[in-house]
Amino acid sequence: MPVQQALAELRHLLGERLSLSKADLDAHGRSESHFRTTPPDGVVFPETSEEAQDIVRICATHNVPVIGWGAGTSLEGHALAIRGGICVDFSRMNKILEIRSADMDVTVQPGVTREALNEELRATGLFFPVDPGANASIGGMAMTRASGTTAVRYGTMRDNVMGMQVVLADGRLIHTGTRARKSASGYDLTALMVGSEGTLGLTTELTLKLHGIPEAISAGICSFSDMASAVAAVTETIQMGIPMARIEFVCADTARAFNTYAGVSMDPAPHLMVEFHGSPESTAQDAERFAEIVADHDGSPFRWSSREEERRALWAMRHNGYYAILASRKGARALVTDICVPISQLARAVEETQADIAASIIPGPILGHVGDGNFHAILLVDLDQPAELEEAKRLSDRMVERSLALGGTATGEHGVGIGKKPYMAAEHGDAWDVMGSIKQALDPQGIMNPGKVVPGN
Amino acid sequence: MPVQQALAELRHLLGERLSLSKADLDAHGRSESHFRTTPPDGVVFPETSEEAQDIVRICATHNVPVIGWGAGTSLEGHALAIRGGICVDFSRMNKILEIRSADMDVTVQPGVTREALNEELRATGLFFPVDPGANASIGGMAMTRASGTTAVRYGTMRDNVMGMQVVLADGRLIHTGTRARKSASGYDLTALMVGSEGTLGLTTELTLKLHGIPEAISAGICSFSDMASAVAAVTETIQMGIPMARIEFVCADTARAFNTYAGVSMDPAPHLMVEFHGSPESTAQDAERFAEIVADHDGSPFRWSSREEERRALWAMRHNGYYAILASRKGARALVTDICVPISQLARAVEETQADIAASIIPGPILGHVGDGNFHAILLVDLDQPAELEEAKRLSDRMVERSLALGGTATGEHGVGIGKKPYMAAEHGDAWDVMGSIKQALDPQGIMNPGKVVPGN
Repeated sequence: MPVQQALAELRHLLGERLSLSKADLDAHGRSESHFRTTPPDGVVFPETSEEAQDIVRICATHNVPVIGWGAGTSLEGHALAIRGGICVDFSRMNKILEIRSADMDVTVQPGVTREALNEELRATGLFFPVDPGANASIGGMAMTRASGTTAVRYGTMRDNVMGMQVVLADGRLIHTGTRARKSASGYDLTALMVGSEGTLGLTTELTLKLHGIPEAISAGICSFSDMASAVAAVTETIQMGIPMARIEFVCADTARAFNTYAGVSMDPAPHLMVEFHGSPESTAQDAERFAEIVADHDGSPFRWSSREEERRALWAMRHNGYYAILASRKGARALVTDICVPISQLARAVEETQADIAASIIPGPILGHVGDGNFHAILLVDLDQPAELEEAKRLSDRMVERSLALGGTATGEHGVGIGKKPYMAAEHGDAWDVMGSIKQALDPQGIMNPGKVVPGN
Repeated sequence: MPVQQALAELRHLLGERLSLSKADLDAHGRSESHFRTTPPDGVVFPETSEEAQDIVRICATHNVPVIGWGAGTSLEGHALAIRGGICVDFSRMNKILEIRSADMDVTVQPGVTREALNEELRATGLFFPVDPGANASIGGMAMTRASGTTAVRYGTMRDNVMGMQVVLADGRLIHTGTRARKSASGYDLTALMVGSEGTLGLTTELTLKLHGIPEAISAGICSFSDMASAVAAVTETIQMGIPMARIEFVCADTARAFNTYAGVSMDPAPHLMVEFHGSPESTAQDAERFAEIVADHDGSPFRWSSREEERRALWAMRHNGYYAILASRKGARALVTDICVPISQLARAVEETQADIAASIIPGPILGHVGDGNFHAILLVDLDQPAELEEAKRLSDRMVERSLALGGTATGEHGVGIGKKPYMAAEHGDAWDVMGSIKQALDPQGIMNPGKVVPGN
């Protein structure tokens, strides 16, 4: 068995940092969402880029799959070893290598989590803004092109990764990008790697843009009688040019789930949660202008605060939204949808999705980053009832169909993994084959995270 | 001759829209900078994407090079037919196909120029911000990853192209991207195409992000006793978080060139030209805060205005900087450098470059987009004196070496073309070979703009 030979060589290279324990294999074969557990053949814990190169070379020699692993918070089964192989866990490569305050950038290893990074940055007055909710690893966030609540202001990983070290399928270590703020020097390999989900290589080092911690932050919440009014308020806020740092939507069912999970007492109605970054004057002004828009759309009074503890409580609740919704149906697993449409189509997309879910046999609370036109229905299924997963897939299919018809995408921020792969042909047409050609050129053996993103394979 | 067969088929396809006139061939073989004229074998003027596909298919059949042409304003010889072949001039594909104000985006054909686009957009209250100075075509700007004076605020073409139609080397027409504001759906082919300089395909349609025309704009100018003080003022402005829409630097020699060319009377000293976008209050406040920084660095009083005519005159002068500098030495041609470094290294890079030029036999006025760390020395050479071009190349080599050593890039915004290709191996190492593998995968015959960007070829 080639994998046995690879494991023997990896044992020689890494000693105890190759694990074959059932606990480790299972932990690295599990997904946060509904996919079944598919353990790898071994888990390795490299400590240097050179070790990552050696791991890939050994796997290439024996034609064994290589799958990167960050914090395991992905929702689309990106890191599942669906063809077996070696899981490369980057948790020991979690150093912050260099903070350059004057240039507002930082170089990190892939295993550092966004919370650990921001903790370390605090004293510098800078922060890394991309915030997918989960305490994901920076490497995983880059490889899935993550974004989250702050993308409306600070962009996604696409906009905030300046360069990377990447181990290719043949063991070469390349550097992409530079520390210059812009460059027109050849193909944008950084952008190609961001969102490639480990199918073109493993990242072992990343340089990120940082931003100044705002002098003042105001945040608040309000409810609406219906979803259309909430979405109309969002659209008007964008068109007025009010600079939001976050603008999040939750539906009535999500509000109910928060009440139970977080012990709060929200109206069972659609809500918006909003944050503004700037000076004390500008954030107060932004909050007041937003409050007027909310009032125009018959929303409840916009309650806002610039006090840190209130703000933290608000976003902690929002960040636990997925878990609150999961807990709202005992024993359920989630199929998470992630469509993103042009803002002008958002109200329609949300309304039609809600009508679909209301007519179905399963619950599907909705929440989303509506400033980007991105929202999630968390479809809750009992995996013991096959009809429920079928129903969830049907709802998901219809959402994606709708999104593509409206000029949108199957996945705004979660990535393709195995969950969204069935939609790639419809979304990209011949461009999907072009992705396959690029994969073939850089990984002709097909060992890098096989079965993900590209056709066939 | 394969090219004769291709020309015969193109004649059949396009009739008079294939030109073989010496005037057309020469006009499409000429460069804005120092490269020698290298005319193509024919110039075609497609009117539809389908015609562009047919053109590429004919050239592929006969193994004839295909080179895209926008407005011909490139500075690195990107569109020169250095291996012969067919020049595809997109000037007849210059329509604005759809403006979607609610989504703040627009779909255009590649031949529309940025000035024509902004003229058309004016009534909507939106604008397309990327501004390389020259009235370039949008297709050319995308393919060279152009930026310019406003990148410090609005980003480059990388940040403002949402999607493209691209004709590949085999004639397939693909669509990249969507109209959603973000997506995590597979490899970022839009980013791969932006900056690919026509070596992977021809773009026949582009969807662009638009921005709201600011309610108020203030702009002004000031001088400094030396370049280090000017650069220090820029760095401090960035670190204070004052949101500049433009921050441009010109050296004393450039100021002298402006005096002659534009009939102004600037001090023969380094200057900064700055612009702020926002509300009447915020732009006034920004200008006043900036004025304080300038005073702290012993600059001349910062004279600013929110009057449109003064602002227009200022930027018209700046946009003519290249031509003003060219005119400062009669009969000279330019070798234009374009390094971009981390901000913390900018003062050093500028000072060392100036010292080098001062010790050389040729003049080289400097100007640049210093908010991004990007600046140009316009090296003026008499092409009849071979030693001068040699000297210019030596100076350029040293600038790039310095930039790479400081964490920067060989080209911040002009692109690779043929002028910066000699620096690609040093800048990218093995990553340059990866670019070559991608090229090989998408254009195995090597017909798309051969001799540019990637190794060999």
